Amino acid sequence: MTDLERIPVAGNGLLDRRLFLRAGIAGGTLLLTARASGVEREEWMKIPGAPMSDLGLPSVHESHVKRTFIRSAPGTTGAGISFTPLEHLDGIITPSRLHFERHHSGIPAIDPDTHRLIVHGLVERPLSFSLETLARYPVVSRINFLECSGNSAGALAPEPLQAPCSAVHGLIATSEWGGVPLSVLLDEAGVKPGAKWIVADGADSPVMNRSVPLAKAMDDAIVALYQNGERLRPSNGYPMRLFLPGWEGNMSVKWLRSIKVVDQPAMARDETSKYSDLQADGTAKLFTFPMGVKSVITSPSYGMQMGEPGIYQVSGLAWSGAGRIRRVEVSADGGQSWADAALDEHLLTRSQTRFRMAWDWDGGSATIMSRATDEAGNVQPSRTEFLAAHRPAVFYHYNGIQAWRIGAAGEVRNVYA
Amino acid sequence: MTDLERIPVAGNGLLDRRLFLRAGIAGGTLLLTARASGVEREEWMKIPGAPMSDLGLPSVHESHVKRTFIRSAPGTTGAGISFTPLEHLDGIITPSRLHFERHHSGIPAIDPDTHRLIVHGLVERPLSFSLETLARYPVVSRINFLECSGNSAGALAPEPLQAPCSAVHGLIATSEWGGVPLSVLLDEAGVKPGAKWIVADGADSPVMNRSVPLAKAMDDAIVALYQNGERLRPSNGYPMRLFLPGWEGNMSVKWLRSIKVVDQPAMARDETSKYSDLQADGTAKLFTFPMGVKSVITSPSYGMQMGEPGIYQVSGLAWSGAGRIRRVEVSADGGQSWADAALDEHLLTRSQTRFRMAWDWDGGSATIMSRATDEAGNVQPSRTEFLAAHRPAVFYHYNGIQAWRIGAAGEVRNVYA
Repeated sequence: MTDLERIPVAGNGLLDRRLFLRAGIAGGTLLLTARASGVEREEWMKIPGAPMSDLGLPSVHESHVKRTFIRSAPGTTGAGISFTPLEHLDGIITPSRLHFERHHSGIPAIDPDTHRLIVHGLVERPLSFSLETLARYPVVSRINFLECSGNSAGALAPEPLQAPCSAVHGLIATSEWGGVPLSVLLDEAGVKPGAKWIVADGADSPVMNRSVPLAKAMDDAIVALYQNGERLRPSNGYPMRLFLPGWEGNMSVKWLRSIKVVDQPAMARDETSKYSDLQADGTAKLFTFPMGVKSVITSPSYGMQMGEPGIYQVSGLAWSGAGRIRRVEVSADGGQSWADAALDEHLLTRSQTRFRMAWDWDGGSATIMSRATDEAGNVQPSRTEFLAAHRPAVFYHYNGIQAWRIGAAGEVRNVYA
Repeated sequence: MTDLERIPVAGNGLLDRRLFLRAGIAGGTLLLTARASGVEREEWMKIPGAPMSDLGLPSVHESHVKRTFIRSAPGTTGAGISFTPLEHLDGIITPSRLHFERHHSGIPAIDPDTHRLIVHGLVERPLSFSLETLARYPVVSRINFLECSGNSAGALAPEPLQAPCSAVHGLIATSEWGGVPLSVLLDEAGVKPGAKWIVADGADSPVMNRSVPLAKAMDDAIVALYQNGERLRPSNGYPMRLFLPGWEGNMSVKWLRSIKVVDQPAMARDETSKYSDLQADGTAKLFTFPMGVKSVITSPSYGMQMGEPGIYQVSGLAWSGAGRIRRVEVSADGGQSWADAALDEHLLTRSQTRFRMAWDWDGGSATIMSRATDEAGNVQPSRTEFLAAHRPAVFYHYNGIQAWRIGAAGEVRNVYA
């Protein structure tokens, strides 16, 4: 085995990231006892494999990779949530079949041929768009995250939830979203003077609706038709949804059927009694739109079991509604010392960014955590800092640092640190 | 209706791309006869929708979106091909279930727990890697295309194939590929002096093998474990494959089980009798690794039917094994005049790039085509230029310009132009 230098950059075994891609790691590989062993063909390699198919499926060995349910369950009708299984994924793209769900009355079955999007209110020309007419308009595609503003609220529980990473932080996913800029459709309708907001209505039975400032609608909002190259999945708004990059997910109204241009917000249920932030003085803070800067280590995380001591990869996701991630720091000694993680090369705006760090685990107990900084200079707060600034009643928009505790037997638990 | 200026930039209706995202398009929308009409709730909007699920599915209305088969069929065992349905997709990411297939003896059923990757040959320490040990190594993720070197060979037929775009050009897909850099594993094994190539073997029954120059193996080659965030699909090499960004797909050996470091290429079947290019003088050109610069308009394309005259979006994909796409030009008059298309904002290296162009179709017949240029300055050749340089016998590596002919009745056909 090579015994290449391992340069520590922070306490308890974090290693220099420049070494990460070049150094011999020498952990967990096996010398072959004979050169030929393991190269012999198995019997099953001598027979033809399975046939081709018009639609591919994952391996049967990956059937455990599915959405995470804790309070809801598969088959739940009405209101419910399921989570993206972050701890089973790598990279940044979320497969559409695993994208988290948050529904208020199930998934409506919409006939795309008869569905229409209406643009009305303070416009010169109220308009109706079918899918066929929308197809003639320009489309833009971008890779963006979508995060429920209630994501990570599980970290506000009095005691740390002993549940998978996804059950706390999995109300987020990243997809390539493609659609027609809302600005084009509003230009087509002719926005009248005095207009300041739009109100978007969904076609689900609760008629989910949200108010969006006109400036955002004219900036980067799209009427999304495509998700990861194909048409939206029904659980993500088929045949069309509003998509507002970087803003709380509830505003990206699914099953979009109406955009009304108005002079003031609708004060809808989901921007007053819900998705608002109760402050210490008893007032409610309305309209917190961009999601804060956040990160979470997905591996190792709750429920995983470390093997032999040696070098491991610490990997996780970081994101910010304010733009690109500039930096992610990792600590392996409970926040006493920090070192910069390596960021994957696609540093896209309002997308998740994968970070990775080499860690020479000594086999003892340790507390690992990550802290993200975005290009606007926002730094992810500690849990204590967040609580001091927002408690007693805040539920939405939690973005505090997540800590995982590796025990002496290599088991991983959720801790507040 | 607004009657905003339409600035022509090339013949037969191509419009300025700066206008594309801002101008009123006014095609195909309908004035509402009454403001309220269309905003009324339908009966089906008053009942709860479908329940939640642990794995999401596409809409039943999208069941026509599946891999394209022409010579093979679903259920084909042994050798066969299926194509990515390019004409039904948008953006750049290919859903994994729709990724093209090219198998030589079906899809082997590999148990991930017992599968091993062997690194041997001219190395200090022959090594064996399980999935568990590989998980401790650094992973990198990148969005790259994968293209079969036989892609677009259908365009070499004596007469234009009247078949969907995918049936000619669909042996390409773009995914986020994540895996361990091969350089790390080779460093771990210790490459001996004199080594110049590696030979990669697959675990399928034909033992597909290919030789790769050591320089590429040490540059950006990875042992891929993840595709679009989740583990590889079986039809893409589960549990691991070689992945060589920008190089002909056959070299990215699926179901990877052995990497042998050697001093000369293996001269395997798929680098001699196949995947080599017979020249006019009777010699064969071996080892054409990077895929050429190419583009294709996916909409409108064969089989589509134009509606009313007016503004349409021309949309397609461009890519190059040499790096980023720098420019895509579009012509609507059979190549007499060209104008630059708009490129989507993610200009990633060795990835597909989506291009779009506004076209004011006058309702008459027209020939549309696209021409890509990459950052190395390579320009996609016309079909005539390609044939002159490569015929009589070349089958692989075709990258000539594709033309589609819109007829007077709005039907779209494949033409050589």
